[in-house]
Amino acid sequence: MPLTRTMEKLILVTNDDGIDAPGIKFLISFLRPLGRIVVVAPQTGMSGMGHAVTISTPLRIKQLASENGIDKYKTNGTPADCVKLALNQILDKKPDLIVSGINHGSNHSINILYSGTMAAAIEGAMQNIPAIGFSMFNYDTKLDFSFAGTYIKQICQNTLESGLPAGTCLNVNFPDNSSPKGIKICRQSIGFWDEGFEKRIDLHQKPYYWLKGEFIVPDQSSNTDDYALKNGYISIVPVTIDLTAHQNIESLKKTYNDI
Amino acid sequence: MPLTRTMEKLILVTNDDGIDAPGIKFLISFLRPLGRIVVVAPQTGMSGMGHAVTISTPLRIKQLASENGIDKYKTNGTPADCVKLALNQILDKKPDLIVSGINHGSNHSINILYSGTMAAAIEGAMQNIPAIGFSMFNYDTKLDFSFAGTYIKQICQNTLESGLPAGTCLNVNFPDNSSPKGIKICRQSIGFWDEGFEKRIDLHQKPYYWLKGEFIVPDQSSNTDDYALKNGYISIVPVTIDLTAHQNIESLKKTYNDI
Repeated sequence: MPLTRTMEKLILVTNDDGIDAPGIKFLISFLRPLGRIVVVAPQTGMSGMGHAVTISTPLRIKQLASENGIDKYKTNGTPADCVKLALNQILDKKPDLIVSGINHGSNHSINILYSGTMAAAIEGAMQNIPAIGFSMFNYDTKLDFSFAGTYIKQICQNTLESGLPAGTCLNVNFPDNSSPKGIKICRQSIGFWDEGFEKRIDLHQKPYYWLKGEFIVPDQSSNTDDYALKNGYISIVPVTIDLTAHQNIESLKKTYNDI
Repeated sequence: MPLTRTMEKLILVTNDDGIDAPGIKFLISFLRPLGRIVVVAPQTGMSGMGHAVTISTPLRIKQLASENGIDKYKTNGTPADCVKLALNQILDKKPDLIVSGINHGSNHSINILYSGTMAAAIEGAMQNIPAIGFSMFNYDTKLDFSFAGTYIKQICQNTLESGLPAGTCLNVNFPDNSSPKGIKICRQSIGFWDEGFEKRIDLHQKPYYWLKGEFIVPDQSSNTDDYALKNGYISIVPVTIDLTAHQNIESLKKTYNDI
């Protein structure tokens, strides 16, 4: 096997909008120059699935026709399932990088916790594989993602070269603006959904409910992802799998007399 | 309305094992002395749903017969949906406390990210409502949870009295031992699933896959939840909705020349 082949980086690509979504097609085209790409993605949209994993129904894998040397598989699982299936059933070695997206709609602030896109990246962090989730603060399904290519290549290339600290990944969001002002390294903003449900009546006179809401970020500090996006920058938030509120440990110890 | 009524605390109870699971029945019985209980829980088991929310199918709510003054509702949604529906459609005021569980099986370490039980508590943290998830490091479906009652009452009473810092909740796990040595305030341990899939062949000769794995925690520091549980203590981890890896921000800023 020639040296260039053994040196070639292996990149696993997934998403939560499904394997036929425009975002993942753009992503694949951007990443092609960086290494060997294997795609393992949900067969349908999985938005809002968070870090769900499938434990009560059988998982299926279907290999699709290769396109330009890129192996593609679709599964009936969630984004987290796709990463697990790829690592354990599909790939012949550990990937050098996991890339998820490009998601239609942002996953900044606390939305990371609802995001299947980011769950796939967090699966990488859990297995100490460098991983990045890309999302777009735009909901136009006909959006041309081309402008993001240079940035995505740069961020993935940097990550392939330098890796990421154990137990972490990157949450990258693009602003709703095809000429970003640049990249900002941010902390996650703390926002909340001001929610409600639209109550409707079905044909049998029974009520059903659709979730609706407005996302509000009271914290407008300039070092947050929300501020960066609203001011035309790409936000990169380093994400940890350690959810401990370390700053609260001492006061809790006093409450519980845990010395 | 008498003063005692207006002073009464409102406690929302949910879980991810479903409204008929033994764990939630024990939980309700423990919490009854602390205030007015309203139960809004999934109609079936939702284990492994993580922080999934339902956005593509209609949500339904069914009110059940009240039992001993406790209002009960079941929904076809996830644990996170149940909290959202409760806050926006069912409860007549903001609850003083959200309690989720008791889960069959632990949700310590990174398993918090897969846990529907903890997603319900995290929903509380997102809305600045004190919230606690309780789980049991035991998978015996006939387990008598009674021994946990004193501790659960104490932890809920403390939380009702003192509240919790904004954007945080508690992840409480009981050891596999009906005589816990006491309570330890911990940080979340960093473990990982050493996973695989069992491949089976269906009646049509097509393969399907079941996730299986072993949970491994290399980090055995005495201040972790894993250590506490394995040594017979109840672990309490304060949890934050801020997933920023703050310690990585400076080095990333250098990589991206973000001054």
